[in-house]
Amino acid sequence: MEQLLSYLEKHKNQYLDELRELLAIPSISTMPEHTGDVERCARWVADHMATIGLRNIQTFPTAGHPIVFGEWLGAPGKPTVLLYGHYDVQPVEPLELWTSPPFQATIRDGNIYARGSADDKGQIFIHFKSIEAYLKNTGSLPINLKLLIEGEEEIGSQHLEQFVRDHKDLLKADLVLVSDSAMFAKGIPSICYGLRGLAYMQIDVVGPNRDLHSGSFGGSIHNPIQVLAEIVAKLHDRNGAVAIPGFYKDVRPLSAGERSTFGKLPWSDRNYARGLGVKQLYGEKGYTTLERVWARPTLECNGIWGGFTGQGAKTVLPARASAKISMRLVPDQQSTKIARVFEKHIKKIAPGTAEVSVSTIHGGEAAITPIDSPGVRAAVAALEKGFGKKPVYQREGGSIPIVVQFKKLLGLDTVLLGFGLPDENAHAPDEFLNLDNFFKGIRTSVHFFNELPKHLNGQGKKS
Amino acid sequence: MEQLLSYLEKHKNQYLDELRELLAIPSISTMPEHTGDVERCARWVADHMATIGLRNIQTFPTAGHPIVFGEWLGAPGKPTVLLYGHYDVQPVEPLELWTSPPFQATIRDGNIYARGSADDKGQIFIHFKSIEAYLKNTGSLPINLKLLIEGEEEIGSQHLEQFVRDHKDLLKADLVLVSDSAMFAKGIPSICYGLRGLAYMQIDVVGPNRDLHSGSFGGSIHNPIQVLAEIVAKLHDRNGAVAIPGFYKDVRPLSAGERSTFGKLPWSDRNYARGLGVKQLYGEKGYTTLERVWARPTLECNGIWGGFTGQGAKTVLPARASAKISMRLVPDQQSTKIARVFEKHIKKIAPGTAEVSVSTIHGGEAAITPIDSPGVRAAVAALEKGFGKKPVYQREGGSIPIVVQFKKLLGLDTVLLGFGLPDENAHAPDEFLNLDNFFKGIRTSVHFFNELPKHLNGQGKKS
Repeated sequence: MEQLLSYLEKHKNQYLDELRELLAIPSISTMPEHTGDVERCARWVADHMATIGLRNIQTFPTAGHPIVFGEWLGAPGKPTVLLYGHYDVQPVEPLELWTSPPFQATIRDGNIYARGSADDKGQIFIHFKSIEAYLKNTGSLPINLKLLIEGEEEIGSQHLEQFVRDHKDLLKADLVLVSDSAMFAKGIPSICYGLRGLAYMQIDVVGPNRDLHSGSFGGSIHNPIQVLAEIVAKLHDRNGAVAIPGFYKDVRPLSAGERSTFGKLPWSDRNYARGLGVKQLYGEKGYTTLERVWARPTLECNGIWGGFTGQGAKTVLPARASAKISMRLVPDQQSTKIARVFEKHIKKIAPGTAEVSVSTIHGGEAAITPIDSPGVRAAVAALEKGFGKKPVYQREGGSIPIVVQFKKLLGLDTVLLGFGLPDENAHAPDEFLNLDNFFKGIRTSVHFFNELPKHLNGQGKKS
Repeated sequence: MEQLLSYLEKHKNQYLDELRELLAIPSISTMPEHTGDVERCARWVADHMATIGLRNIQTFPTAGHPIVFGEWLGAPGKPTVLLYGHYDVQPVEPLELWTSPPFQATIRDGNIYARGSADDKGQIFIHFKSIEAYLKNTGSLPINLKLLIEGEEEIGSQHLEQFVRDHKDLLKADLVLVSDSAMFAKGIPSICYGLRGLAYMQIDVVGPNRDLHSGSFGGSIHNPIQVLAEIVAKLHDRNGAVAIPGFYKDVRPLSAGERSTFGKLPWSDRNYARGLGVKQLYGEKGYTTLERVWARPTLECNGIWGGFTGQGAKTVLPARASAKISMRLVPDQQSTKIARVFEKHIKKIAPGTAEVSVSTIHGGEAAITPIDSPGVRAAVAALEKGFGKKPVYQREGGSIPIVVQFKKLLGLDTVLLGFGLPDENAHAPDEFLNLDNFFKGIRTSVHFFNELPKHLNGQGKKS
C-alpha cells in the first residue's frame, strides 16, 4: 500500500497531462456534428484501458454511440466490481460564459476547469489511475474488475439497458461502483446511498375547438389556462404536502436513525436559501430541507404553456393549455402506480367544462443501498483513509435510472462514490473538478479495492 | 328615395367590379413588404372618394401608413357624420386553408370571399356607394359627411389618436358612424350600442436565481409555476365571479329593461356550446351568456409560460413563470383603477416564497351609446327600412379603442352599424361578406343619412 501511495504521489503531473488529453476531446453526445469526436473519445478510453493493464477490451457499437468494456479477472474467489461511468459530455453553450475554453483544461485556484472534468471524465479517470497503480506496481488487483463506460449518459443512456440485457454474463459482478456524483460539501467526503425515483407526466387541457377572441367570448366558457391553473393549484395542500390520495401510501418512513444522521450534517437553511436567491424556503411541513429533498416524495411543475406568450398583448382565449409535472419518488413507491393515482386524481378534479387528459412521459424507481451493506462499508473505510476524515452518509434527490436497471437486470446494488462538489457546474459553464478531491479520489479508489475483500467474498457472499 | 333605390338596383354589377378592385390590393399593414400595397390602397380610396363626389380629399402621411380624409359639407344646419373605417387588412396565412386566393375576390353561395371583404373594405365600400347614389342622382346629401379612413387599424391604430388630437377642427361632427362589426346573426339586423373596455396585465413570478434540477432541489423551494398557478386559481370564486376586492365596485348594473331585451334575443346556450366544441359553458352565476359576454366585466388568462415546454421531459425547476391576464370592463369601471386593484390584490395574495411583480400592458374604457340617442334611433329606423325587419339591440364583448378616443377627444358618441356576420372569418382564412347584407347595407346607409336629420339637428341639438 505504501508503495502504491508513493507511486501515486510521483505521477501527479503525468496524471494531469493525460487527463488534459481526455478532456480535450469534445465528445458532446447530443450534437450530430460531434459524432466523430465521440467515437474518438471511445477509442481514447479503450486505448487507455490497455495502457493501464486491463484485458479483453471491447468497443461495442450501438445504434448511437459506442460502449467501451474492459476487465481484469485475475483474483479468483475475490469479489467482482462492475465500474460504470460515461465518456460523453454536455454541450458547452453559452460559450461566452466560460472563463477558459471548455476543451482546453485549465488549472485555477486548485481546480481543473473543462467540460467533463467532473461529469464524468475526471471521475472515471480517478479509477483508471488507481487500477494503473496496482497493475504497474504489483501486477494484480485485490479484486476482479469490469469496466462499462458508455457514450450516451447525457442523452438518456438510450442503448445501455438493451446492452445490459444482452450481456448479462459479461457483466456478472458482485456490486456496481459509480463515481458520477458530488460530495456533500467541500472537505466533507460522503457516501450516497439513496436516489429518488421519478414519474414524469403531462396534463393537456382542451377547451374550445379554436382560439377565441377574449373580448367576444371572455366570460362565457372555462378558459383552459384557468382550468389548468386550478388543477395545478390543488396538487399541494396548505402544509406543502402532495394532495393526491394514495400518493404517500407506500412511502417507507424515515427511520429515527436516519433523521438523526441527516440532522447532524453541517447544514444551514439560511445559506441554502441565500445561495438560491429566495427569501423563504417551501416544502412539506414536519420535515427538514434535507429530508424533503432526499427522502420524501415531491411533485414539481417542470413546464407550463398556453395562449399568447410573446411581447405585448394579444386578446386570445386559447383553445388549449398544458403542463409537465414530475414526481420524485422514494422507496417503496412504484412509478407506474404513482402515475395511475396521479391520472385518476387529475381526472377526478377536472371540471366538466373542458377535456383534461393525462399522459405518462417516463418513470423509474427509487434506489437505496443499505448503509450496512459490504460495498458501503468498504467505501466508508476507503473514504476515511483517502480523505483522512470520516465520510458522511447522504442521499440524493435526483435519479440515476441506470442504477435501478442494474438492480433489476443484474440484481446488483450500487455504491455511489462521488468526488465532485455541489457547485461544480456540471452541465453549465466553468465546470470543474477540485484537484484535491481528484488526488484524494485516486487514493480512495486504491483503498476501496483493497478494503472490499475484507467485507465481501466473491459471488456476493458476505465475509 | 325611389330614384335612389332603383339606381342602386341598376348598378349592382358595377359595385361588385369596383369592390373586387379594392379587395385585390394586399394592404396588409403589419408586413413591411406590403408597405407599397398599403400606400396604393390609400391612393385607391382617395381616388374613389373623388369619383363618388366627395370634396377636400387629403391623404395624411403618418410615421406609419397614411390616413385618408374626404368630406361633403353642402348641408348647412344639418347634422354632420364622421364616418370612420380602415382600408388595411390582416395577414392571410395559412394560405393553404383558403378555398380561393385571398386577393382574388370570388363569389360563392351568395357571399364574396376575400381578405378585407368584411373587415373592413367591404363595409366602408357600402357607404361609398350610398354617398355616390345621393351625389350622382340629387347632387347633394341630406347631411354633412366627413370620412376618416385609416391604414393601421389591424396594428392597433398607432398614429390615429395623435391625428385626432391634431385635427379636432377638421373632424368636428355630431356623431361617429362605424361599420366594422357584425350583425347578431344572419337575417337579424342589429344595432350595437356597447363595447367593453380592457385592462391588460402581466404577472411575473421569479423564484430561484437560476433554473434548478428538479430532482436535487425539488420539494425545498416554492416552484414559480406553482406560485403562479396558485395565484391564477384564486382569481375566480366558486360562482365564476372575479375574486378581486373592488373589481365590481363601479360596475353599472344591468337594467331590468336591458336584461329583458337580451332575454328576448334568439339564443341557444346549447348551440353556442356545440359551436365552440365545449360540453359545458362557464361563467358568472346569476347571469345569462349574453349578459356575461356583453355587459359583465370578466377576467381571462391570455397566456401562460414557464419551464420546459418542448417534446418529452426535462427535469427543471424553473427560475420564473409568467402569465398575461386581461380584464374586460363595462361602464363605469375605469381601466387604470382596475389595473390598480388587480396589482394590489396580486401582491396581497402572493406568497413570501417568490418575487411576484405585476405590470400593465395597456388599457381602455368601455363605451356605451344610449339606445334612445338620435344616432341610434336613426340607425334603427334605417335598418328596418334597409332590411325590411326591425333590428335587435346588442352589445359586444370586445373593445374598439378608437370609439373611446372619439368620445374623449371629440366628445362624440358612436353608432356601430355592422353588416358582417358572426362567422365571417375576419382575421382567418375564407373571410367573406354576405352579398345580401352588402346590398341591404347600401340601402340602410342611404336610409340612415335620410333619417338622421329627423332625429338630430346640426351641432348635436336634438330635433
